Amino acid sequence: MTTQPDEHLRYPIGRFAKPSEYTSELFAQSINTIKTLPARLRAEVIKLTDAQLNTTYRPGGWTLKQVVHHLADSHMNALMRIKLALTEEHPSIKPYDEAGWANQIDYSLPVESSLKILEGIHQHMVALYESFDEAQWNRSFLHPERGVVYTIALSAAMYAWHSNHHLAHITETMKQWDK
Amino acid sequence: MTTQPDEHLRYPIGRFAKPSEYTSELFAQSINTIKTLPARLRAEVIKLTDAQLNTTYRPGGWTLKQVVHHLADSHMNALMRIKLALTEEHPSIKPYDEAGWANQIDYSLPVESSLKILEGIHQHMVALYESFDEAQWNRSFLHPERGVVYTIALSAAMYAWHSNHHLAHITETMKQWDK
Amino acid sequence: MTTQPDEHLRYPIGRFAKPSEYTSELFAQSINTIKTLPARLRAEVIKLTDAQLNTTYRPGGWTLKQVVHHLADSHMNALMRIKLALTEEHPSIKPYDEAGWANQIDYSLPVESSLKILEGIHQHMVALYESFDEAQWNRSFLHPERGVVYTIALSAAMYAWHSNHHLAHITETMKQWDK
Amino acid sequence: MTTQPDEHLRYPIGRFAKPSEYTSELFAQSINTIKTLPARLRAEVIKLTDAQLNTTYRPGGWTLKQVVHHLADSHMNALMRIKLALTEEHPSIKPYDEAGWANQIDYSLPVESSLKILEGIHQHMVALYESFDEAQWNRSFLHPERGVVYTIALSAAMYAWHSNHHLAHITETMKQWDK
Repeated sequence: MTTQPDEHLRYPIGRFAKPSEYTSELFAQSINTIKTLPARLRAEVIKLTDAQLNTTYRPGGWTLKQVVHHLADSHMNALMRIKLALTEEHPSIKPYDEAGWANQIDYSLPVESSLKILEGIHQHMVALYESFDEAQWNRSFLHPERGVVYTIALSAAMYAWHSNHHLAHITETMKQWDK
Repeated sequence: MTTQPDEHLRYPIGRFAKPSEYTSELFAQSINTIKTLPARLRAEVIKLTDAQLNTTYRPGGWTLKQVVHHLADSHMNALMRIKLALTEEHPSIKPYDEAGWANQIDYSLPVESSLKILEGIHQHMVALYESFDEAQWNRSFLHPERGVVYTIALSAAMYAWHSNHHLAHITETMKQWDK
Repeated sequence: MTTQPDEHLRYPIGRFAKPSEYTSELFAQSINTIKTLPARLRAEVIKLTDAQLNTTYRPGGWTLKQVVHHLADSHMNALMRIKLALTEEHPSIKPYDEAGWANQIDYSLPVESSLKILEGIHQHMVALYESFDEAQWNRSFLHPERGVVYTIALSAAMYAWHSNHHLAHITETMKQWDK
Repeated sequence: MTTQPDEHLRYPIGRFAKPSEYTSELFAQSINTIKTLPARLRAEVIKLTDAQLNTTYRPGGWTLKQVVHHLADSHMNALMRIKLALTEEHPSIKPYDEAGWANQIDYSLPVESSLKILEGIHQHMVALYESFDEAQWNRSFLHPERGVVYTIALSAAMYAWHSNHHLAHITETMKQWDK
């Protein structure tokens, strides 16, 4: 893995690190992060003008508005992958072209629609996570393009990171403006 | 296709019929149905008590609450299938076990989470539909289990039907109670 | 009371008529109307473009957007008047200049903010109404400018009418466009 | 003003202090606080169980749920007082019995209704505040029971404090549980 010249802009909270072990503290922390993301995101984006929402978080990167809509699309996929893993034996999930999706016209909608989707979806994710025993945390799916096997436990850690990762794109950009 | 003894309970607005042709009137009608479903659904379910939400719409069928959560899950998949069809060449989508999903614990959440998801998702669906030219309406995906090819145009007609189909499960059940 | 030349535009569902008696059917009907108004309103306004929202429902009247924001302001006052009547002995409420309020800059906000306010407020109104015994329905407040005494029962009938009255301004205007 | 034995529980961020001067920094800070309160509040209360929501923040005080509903009622009044001050010359506003209101049955509703009301209302407050020139900030209303004249500027500072004051009741209570 090569560090990129704009590594700090791309990965403001660092890259995702696979947990070395799964403890109840880690689960509680991931759940808490996922539970609060929609409101923490809303508290930030509500401060932004349209012009600010249409600013990229790094040269050549997505606009802040695209970041919000991407979170909704990505976590919609997350919820589905959890349910696929619960109802099928080690399913192969359907990857999607996140760059292509971000260029569709619905990414120019006001952010409210995606904030609502996130509020709803994260409640479902959390209701599921909070009910899991060890067997359920260990159910898994295959991401066929990455060739990676994800347990639900691993994916929960990853989506918690992913929540804060993209939120940091927004808050780091806002800090630049305040200087 | 065999008619079932409880056909009128299962299919209160009739089974889905594939459109014989796609006209701008049909598109406008489908879009209007999809645009208004979340609010029409909210206007009905807001009248229901918890006990009513936990009643099945037919013997052996889902509860009204499961119907609401199913709509959110199904239309989340719908939105994704549209985007997959737009960004890949005739992709094969990932089916899901809707009966299995309906038995997961998140289907016991209050309906508000799924009403929010539907409000957000349908705005995205409509923003996409309203932007389409003929080439985009004709983009397609394969449902590998059913062996059916869906153009986006066909799927729009189907999801409009699906919206009213499940809403009718709720409103028909409510009519029984008023007798 | 003089009928106005544009009476049908001003009063599409007719003027408010004071109920001759208060029955449990009337209460149930008023509550049902108030319970569903926010979603029925959302189902209509979601169909409108910005240009349509900025159209007046009659020459010299409010725009459809102003009508939506007025409903939020008016029913916020309604909720407060109920609570004042419950917690004080026949209070005199504070009237407000609804024409003046409609010219403030917040009436140019997108309608989403007022739809959310209405969703929340109507839930509170309904929770209160559904709990009332006869003594509570008969509690009252004075509207000092109109010199009218309102029981909560009368105000419930009036706000149910008021809900459908303004919704009809919107739906009647939309019918004109479809011709 | 006598300090109370449970002063730190009652006033976790201290009592409100009238600003000595009104600067653009103060206005920006108040607006920012008011803009983000609904989402910051949602991010906290979403973590709470029903049992936790029904816990008081101090012996003899309101439950956390009552605190949330009180914020909605209080800030509804705040929005109205701003509009009264804008559309009338130094109006006398209608006080309300906040303890009496907190004992009404709608305060036992789930918090979602009041979170929505707050999301909508704060958008209106902020749209107004952000449009004000000095003359508008200086418009005023009389609180007849307290005998206090409030300029809109003073009330903005007060409602910013009030937002964080009640949010701190919730977050301070949560800290106790984590010990």
